[in-house]
Amino acid sequence: MALTHINAVGEATMVDVGHKPSTARMARAYGRINMQPQTLAAILSHTLKKGDVLAVARVAGIMAAKRTSALIPLCHGLALSSVSVDFQPFGEQAGAATSGFHCLGEAHTHGQTGVEMEALTAVSVALLTLYDMGKAIDRFMSIEGMAMVEKQGGKSGHWVNPHLSAWASGQH
Amino acid sequence: MALTHINAVGEATMVDVGHKPSTARMARAYGRINMQPQTLAAILSHTLKKGDVLAVARVAGIMAAKRTSALIPLCHGLALSSVSVDFQPFGEQAGAATSGFHCLGEAHTHGQTGVEMEALTAVSVALLTLYDMGKAIDRFMSIEGMAMVEKQGGKSGHWVNPHLSAWASGQH
Amino acid sequence: MALTHINAVGEATMVDVGHKPSTARMARAYGRINMQPQTLAAILSHTLKKGDVLAVARVAGIMAAKRTSALIPLCHGLALSSVSVDFQPFGEQAGAATSGFHCLGEAHTHGQTGVEMEALTAVSVALLTLYDMGKAIDRFMSIEGMAMVEKQGGKSGHWVNPHLSAWASGQH
Amino acid sequence: MALTHINAVGEATMVDVGHKPSTARMARAYGRINMQPQTLAAILSHTLKKGDVLAVARVAGIMAAKRTSALIPLCHGLALSSVSVDFQPFGEQAGAATSGFHCLGEAHTHGQTGVEMEALTAVSVALLTLYDMGKAIDRFMSIEGMAMVEKQGGKSGHWVNPHLSAWASGQH
Amino acid sequence: MALTHINAVGEATMVDVGHKPSTARMARAYGRINMQPQTLAAILSHTLKKGDVLAVARVAGIMAAKRTSALIPLCHGLALSSVSVDFQPFGEQAGAATSGFHCLGEAHTHGQTGVEMEALTAVSVALLTLYDMGKAIDRFMSIEGMAMVEKQGGKSGHWVNPHLSAWASGQH
Amino acid sequence: MALTHINAVGEATMVDVGHKPSTARMARAYGRINMQPQTLAAILSHTLKKGDVLAVARVAGIMAAKRTSALIPLCHGLALSSVSVDFQPFGEQAGAATSGFHCLGEAHTHGQTGVEMEALTAVSVALLTLYDMGKAIDRFMSIEGMAMVEKQGGKSGHWVNPHLSAWASGQH
Repeated sequence: MALTHINAVGEATMVDVGHKPSTARMARAYGRINMQPQTLAAILSHTLKKGDVLAVARVAGIMAAKRTSALIPLCHGLALSSVSVDFQPFGEQAGAATSGFHCLGEAHTHGQTGVEMEALTAVSVALLTLYDMGKAIDRFMSIEGMAMVEKQGGKSGHWVNPHLSAWASGQH
Repeated sequence: MALTHINAVGEATMVDVGHKPSTARMARAYGRINMQPQTLAAILSHTLKKGDVLAVARVAGIMAAKRTSALIPLCHGLALSSVSVDFQPFGEQAGAATSGFHCLGEAHTHGQTGVEMEALTAVSVALLTLYDMGKAIDRFMSIEGMAMVEKQGGKSGHWVNPHLSAWASGQH
Repeated sequence: MALTHINAVGEATMVDVGHKPSTARMARAYGRINMQPQTLAAILSHTLKKGDVLAVARVAGIMAAKRTSALIPLCHGLALSSVSVDFQPFGEQAGAATSGFHCLGEAHTHGQTGVEMEALTAVSVALLTLYDMGKAIDRFMSIEGMAMVEKQGGKSGHWVNPHLSAWASGQH
Repeated sequence: MALTHINAVGEATMVDVGHKPSTARMARAYGRINMQPQTLAAILSHTLKKGDVLAVARVAGIMAAKRTSALIPLCHGLALSSVSVDFQPFGEQAGAATSGFHCLGEAHTHGQTGVEMEALTAVSVALLTLYDMGKAIDRFMSIEGMAMVEKQGGKSGHWVNPHLSAWASGQH
Repeated sequence: MALTHINAVGEATMVDVGHKPSTARMARAYGRINMQPQTLAAILSHTLKKGDVLAVARVAGIMAAKRTSALIPLCHGLALSSVSVDFQPFGEQAGAATSGFHCLGEAHTHGQTGVEMEALTAVSVALLTLYDMGKAIDRFMSIEGMAMVEKQGGKSGHWVNPHLSAWASGQH
Repeated sequence: MALTHINAVGEATMVDVGHKPSTARMARAYGRINMQPQTLAAILSHTLKKGDVLAVARVAGIMAAKRTSALIPLCHGLALSSVSVDFQPFGEQAGAATSGFHCLGEAHTHGQTGVEMEALTAVSVALLTLYDMGKAIDRFMSIEGMAMVEKQGGKSGHWVNPHLSAWASGQH
């Protein structure tokens, strides 16, 4: 198989998308941050009291999605028609084996390239932002399972990752 | 436990580091991208032929580390004295259960705040860049295990994550 | 009334504009900086001698308009077809009660979202740049009256703010 | 009086601060957004329900403060040791003549230049972000009264704007 | 002749391109870095050993092309459909009068404005990046001959610079 | 000779400057844009009439110098204490063989790394900005002779390029 971003002599290049049709495109990515139960409790406690923790992480993810092409060298710039970032806590109950937040990032555009990298960048920076806010009280957090859940548009139509179908957009 | 980036009324705030001493600081982070064996083979094949794949990802990680404070809302800006990103393939042999690349990001500064977020951002964007270059041939890649390996400097001195000590700087 | 950038559970979100028609859109914003008469005199004196003061502020406003979506978290990225920033001094005459500069910023695009924020950002950063250049000689400057003057395009057609109609595009 | 950012032949220049001593510096700026009472009510209602509105604006202001030198052409880059943005609603009561939010931005550093522009940029972008979120329901918002409240550090020591002393840091 | 970016009263302005047709556009720019033979030898020696030198410069050029409108004040933002940067060494043979690298940058879009500045920015930053990597061993490098080779699209159709036709896209 | 930005296995890396002493550093770079006499005349004519052309280019160069480390991948971020960009026309007289503008960029800092790249980036982007403003009337402009004129600070002390000593700081 040939890598699309590398030309015949092995040099990095931006794939030419000039000939591709403009279609409505969507991508949805998943990621998760594992943390100690007391870290989760601290964040949830702030959240319940109108704390900004999750809002800050959401904004960070949305803003990062908009600058994806400035971060990922061979990624095309495009105008997103919407982006969202959602968190869902897990393992809040006493005795849970692991606890933390699931994170879903979803990006939409109408254009010639897909928005997988925008959705993944949103998730990645949103989780790093949670990490940043928790790191003074928990050095053992880890970010896990970042992958595509679903994409629509372009020549491959609607695709759902069978391993992550529980997180697809129709499921919530 | 109290979150440091949230004030008494639950509002986001940048922690004041003005009173902290300036010391030499280092942080080392780990992450991993899992991919199908043929994706790994395609990347390694390009790499052997002077292909730019890993170089592009390394550069992306280094450049992202330098703009960490523009991505993570409550993170302080600082001047890094060095950053590096290293990849190590795994599972190249036939029949390996999983394959992909380990990634280590290391950042150094002399200043009032730690550089954990810089090291993690380097790893995160380097892995996303590999993802971008491989996504046309593999929709099932995932980014896993992003966590701190080691940090030095500041009031807590030298700390190595016992679960990741094999990746600490002295080990390579 | 419901805020458009906040979803049903109170979370920040980028409004989905994917279904909106692309139309020619224009927005014109006003703002003003009040300064001491001698500060105005210093700036005008430089301006008369080919000084760069107003040029610097104009460029700053134009460049900021182009990066509006990187500054305003839930604002869509778009390609501006033109931006302009204009200044008009007031209160130059001896004994004027207040003196300073009026500033008008105008942005145009052809797209799915309005350009109000681009016009306001241009005015805001242009005025802050004047502030920066004058602050060593005047600590009492203030920025006042930043508001929309006029907008065109989209479903609401042509709208002129009745309180600021003297600054509308047809008036100059 | 001579403008410091313009050289003897009228050209823009960054003031050389290389000879200035590094001292602890602080600046506090004020600004206000006026809005219709029902716009204020909509925002406060979201805020009470854990809505992200003010959190988004706070984050936007903090992030903008960190990139002040990329927005204001002749402004020096510096590492902020902290930034904060605070809002206070006014005119919530029935029959108030005007209503909206007061905004205070405060920046700190230890360095050779003051942080007035950082504090003002934080206020400016935070208020523009509120404007963005409210603009679909209120076209008559205006941003008013942006000015310095207080500064500390550097050769002029501690200065409080007598017209805005009610907003100085010791007053809250 | 009148400059297009300056209005009737001599003020900088972004040219309004709103009325221009969207067409496929391409621009190709040339530039060259001269260096001492031993600097060229050091770079080529690394390149032969899978060194990243040219890959880093290529990535830098591509990323800079994507942010051209943030660097060049009156340049319109646009979405590039592809960018590439190529290097070709010259003067490797013993006794060559000059040695270094030729650099070609090529940008494509479908839009209302040409992409000359994107192609030139790619070349410029790619060459500066080579300069950066070589400067510790060679203080006498120089960047020369940066100019347009060829452009297509827009009202002037296909144009090739007669002095640089050897570098046009059909020639390689 | 070994390239400093490439490690023993040929990978890009940021040179570690953590051990270097902080000293006052300066760098001065030169570049030139050649243009047709009538292009020069158009720019000078605007300049005489308070036109913004050179001011825009100066601002662009200054702003670009401040973001050098975001453009040049392995370049360290640093806080510049001053930057300036100067132009000097040549070949204005009838019958001149070549005409255009000389450009000098000068950057200062107090830190652990030199500011050569900042000075060169200032010149490069200032000249590209002139190019942008002239390109509609002149397709044959070229940027030539970009090189270091002079540097001070760090272990090599004061160095003047003997080929460009006419442009050194003491000469004007």
